[in-house]
Amino acid sequence: MKKGIAASKGYAIGKIFLKEHQEIVITDAKVADVSIEKEKLQSALEASKTQLQAIKVKAEKEMGAEKAAVFEAHITLLDDPEFTGAMINEIEGNSLNALKAVDNITNSFVAIFESMDNDYMKERAADIKDVSKRIVLNLTGNGGDAFAITENNTVIVAHDLTPSDTAQLDRSKVVGFITNIGGRTSHAAIMARTLEIPAVLGLGDITTSVKTGDTIIADGIEGDVIINPSEEVLAEYRAKQKKFQEEQEELKKLINVKTTTKSGRRLEVCGNIGKPEDVLGVLANGGDGVGLFRTEFLYMDRESAPTEDEQFESYKFVLEKMEDKQVVIRTLDIGGDKTLPYLPLPEEMNPFLGYRAIRLCLDRKEVFKVQLRALLRASIYGKLAVMFPMISGLEEFKQAREVVEECKIELKSEGKEYSENIQWGIMVEIPAAAVYADELAKHVDFFSIGTNDLIQYTLAADRMSEKVSYLYNPMHPAVLRLIKMTIDGAHKHGKWVGMCGEMAGDEVAIPTLVEYGLDEFSMSSTSILNAKKIMLEQE
Amino acid sequence: MKKGIAASKGYAIGKIFLKEHQEIVITDAKVADVSIEKEKLQSALEASKTQLQAIKVKAEKEMGAEKAAVFEAHITLLDDPEFTGAMINEIEGNSLNALKAVDNITNSFVAIFESMDNDYMKERAADIKDVSKRIVLNLTGNGGDAFAITENNTVIVAHDLTPSDTAQLDRSKVVGFITNIGGRTSHAAIMARTLEIPAVLGLGDITTSVKTGDTIIADGIEGDVIINPSEEVLAEYRAKQKKFQEEQEELKKLINVKTTTKSGRRLEVCGNIGKPEDVLGVLANGGDGVGLFRTEFLYMDRESAPTEDEQFESYKFVLEKMEDKQVVIRTLDIGGDKTLPYLPLPEEMNPFLGYRAIRLCLDRKEVFKVQLRALLRASIYGKLAVMFPMISGLEEFKQAREVVEECKIELKSEGKEYSENIQWGIMVEIPAAAVYADELAKHVDFFSIGTNDLIQYTLAADRMSEKVSYLYNPMHPAVLRLIKMTIDGAHKHGKWVGMCGEMAGDEVAIPTLVEYGLDEFSMSSTSILNAKKIMLEQE
Repeated sequence: MKKGIAASKGYAIGKIFLKEHQEIVITDAKVADVSIEKEKLQSALEASKTQLQAIKVKAEKEMGAEKAAVFEAHITLLDDPEFTGAMINEIEGNSLNALKAVDNITNSFVAIFESMDNDYMKERAADIKDVSKRIVLNLTGNGGDAFAITENNTVIVAHDLTPSDTAQLDRSKVVGFITNIGGRTSHAAIMARTLEIPAVLGLGDITTSVKTGDTIIADGIEGDVIINPSEEVLAEYRAKQKKFQEEQEELKKLINVKTTTKSGRRLEVCGNIGKPEDVLGVLANGGDGVGLFRTEFLYMDRESAPTEDEQFESYKFVLEKMEDKQVVIRTLDIGGDKTLPYLPLPEEMNPFLGYRAIRLCLDRKEVFKVQLRALLRASIYGKLAVMFPMISGLEEFKQAREVVEECKIELKSEGKEYSENIQWGIMVEIPAAAVYADELAKHVDFFSIGTNDLIQYTLAADRMSEKVSYLYNPMHPAVLRLIKMTIDGAHKHGKWVGMCGEMAGDEVAIPTLVEYGLDEFSMSSTSILNAKKIMLEQE
Repeated sequence: MKKGIAASKGYAIGKIFLKEHQEIVITDAKVADVSIEKEKLQSALEASKTQLQAIKVKAEKEMGAEKAAVFEAHITLLDDPEFTGAMINEIEGNSLNALKAVDNITNSFVAIFESMDNDYMKERAADIKDVSKRIVLNLTGNGGDAFAITENNTVIVAHDLTPSDTAQLDRSKVVGFITNIGGRTSHAAIMARTLEIPAVLGLGDITTSVKTGDTIIADGIEGDVIINPSEEVLAEYRAKQKKFQEEQEELKKLINVKTTTKSGRRLEVCGNIGKPEDVLGVLANGGDGVGLFRTEFLYMDRESAPTEDEQFESYKFVLEKMEDKQVVIRTLDIGGDKTLPYLPLPEEMNPFLGYRAIRLCLDRKEVFKVQLRALLRASIYGKLAVMFPMISGLEEFKQAREVVEECKIELKSEGKEYSENIQWGIMVEIPAAAVYADELAKHVDFFSIGTNDLIQYTLAADRMSEKVSYLYNPMHPAVLRLIKMTIDGAHKHGKWVGMCGEMAGDEVAIPTLVEYGLDEFSMSSTSILNAKKIMLEQE
């Protein structure tokens, strides 16, 4: 038995498909005719692009738009003059073959990004490696579908699984992931949880201990992996698997159950969405509403901002699908680690403490108003609540509401309809808002606690920074106190409080949050049923 | 009358010395013999270095080590291969004369730094311009002392005053500063306040409206400037000046007065220091102690870390000078915007939320222990209190105290003495520490509120970022509540609370802080007397 990191729950029992760790030997071959090499590279780039586009479509359908966005970034890399453009120059300038040129440029990029001791930059290095590997495979004639999996109950064992690897999988045949590297927050882990496939990662050298066709058990709860188990062990895990599946079936029964604690308090369990179509996952999992629609995804991976009509259609789609269930839409939260090509931001030393979200929107009213007008127009199609991100005090909320009123006057004069029943709230994600919640509550309709940022600011620890992420602790007593202050402050004035950060779906945190009186919990759709189950057991 | 920014209090009445805005025309002259140009540049660099070293010594004596540190940075620039080295390459590579080479390299550096929309980087651009100007002046034979001021009561009118300009001034003759550009936080403003010279800045085009020898009044309280005033106006301002000076004399009487509010509560008014000799300013202004010794200045502008003995001597010097008055020493707060050449830090996306201060010290115990041992050994020479920066929870304080105990055991086995009466406290500058103050207070001897960082994190606004610094507000109700929570939390367990951020010396904030029960106020030495006066008037 080997011990790894339990990265996605469940038990996988099946035959191994060993994904070879393809090492391509690249020789430093000078060529006489660079034009042939340039053509080769060009067709490899085109093949890569076609493959990535297909992967992206598949990923969007199976995993949602948010998770698929990475492939759009990969496609953009293929057109990047500093990346693939540099490869062409490398062929020409040094009379190299295409393979060597790709390798040289990739290595220099990866070296730059990896030298930065920063998770965000290291992820960029992983993207570059993934794209580069695809180009190389296409150059050497090994491109296309790397997973020709024909057997049912296949457990994939690989050195690592890249986003494009996981996106290509045949979900009807693959029942588990096992890798040498990666942890709970790696791409492979996130994908496994999204696809609801059990996964054990970070096993070090598992690829050298197994071969295709071996039987294997992956215990995604304990992190155990057993190669060629005895019949006895197999029976033991089949029983565990059966029990787990029964529990999952049990959970499915909760889809239409309203969540009420033992003492009779009704809780709302909602889903977070990125793109309009993600709303289907919320409904499929029995969500009571949408607790967070991150509208920045409408703005990303485009050359220009979405128009008022485009946005209107997106909001209308979500509101109509949710019918009489509430949809909380957050206005544009760009800046920080999220940027847009058509909305250049100043370079800042600490972007997380900088020009972003409502700060940007109040400064760039022409951008803000397009969204607000679209929201107002869509409001007649369902039960809409709008919240502003990164509010630090009353003044910002008042200013934002003034812009809303301006938009209403405009719409009225244009003869366009909007609802007067929209709820207007704020994200509580800056410590100042939590500390001052009892006063802010007099003016807003609701709060939604954004724990990811709130924790980060309260502890002054960037969770993206490898050196201090250990400080990022949702259960830190100061964080819990701020959450309690926010809830108490809202209830004092009869307002409701939601939470849309990762903590809302965290099994460890839920009992405390229920005890504190949180009214609405919003999380990824796949966590809804398990959260409901835990809540039903609370007082 | 012209209106500018009141940047340093008081009334200056005198004759103008107009500092010409020297525009040197640089022609693109190719040269045949580059070796002559290289020699010229070399001697200009050497002359610049000699001048800057003299300026630095003068500045240290007159303005303290902290303000003089900028000249060390300028001297370093003169030796920077990427800067002056590039100039030499520019002469050689393009057969340019020295003047043009300096200009080319300077422009490309300045363009890079100014393109970053970030105050910190813009300040670097200003440093580069200042150094470059000096090199150019030395190349054209205009180097040396730019201020040959012979008249008493001289008011300097200039486009701007660089750090090296202000450092060269003859303080016995200059009574005021007036400039076209700059605001309250510009170099010229900070220098003026340090030198206690009235200043009005940001007048736009004052240099074009006056000539050397004109009579001028600069009102550093209202920001007014009057050129060639009538006898009547002169008399009016002479009266104001007299009154102001009398008030200043009045303030001086407070030097030996203990600060007690009307209701009889005793307050400690202390000074912040950067280098050991700054302690003299604290004593000269009647400080009750040192409320913050920023020890990172011992570590800066050096090629290697200060040894235990070097640090011991520095701490001993301060403790002995202060005799029975308390000295609060903060352990190394490096990282964020402060870096050391010999202690490389990871590149982080948000350094203010990253690996710094106690986080670094607990991770790099070998660095931390050198300082702790020096502090312990010095403790027998006075009344020492030690505080740890960036504490977010109890665990960090406990860990730091454990390292202290390790050091004590080592010292004991080496037969070295230390005091058992040291107070051990923490900086409250992370929101979590303020929110959790009542629990932390059980374990520490005291708190010191670091408002600069506390405000920044509480409002999630980097005050160095031009786009969001408007949010940085010490009187934000949430900030005030956190301060109150910290004070109440400490008093509940009989512990005292100080404040060492800029807010402690702020006239507007002092009445509120006194009302909240703050025990100790630590500020720049020049603010102590005025703060005492305000406190004496409180209940």
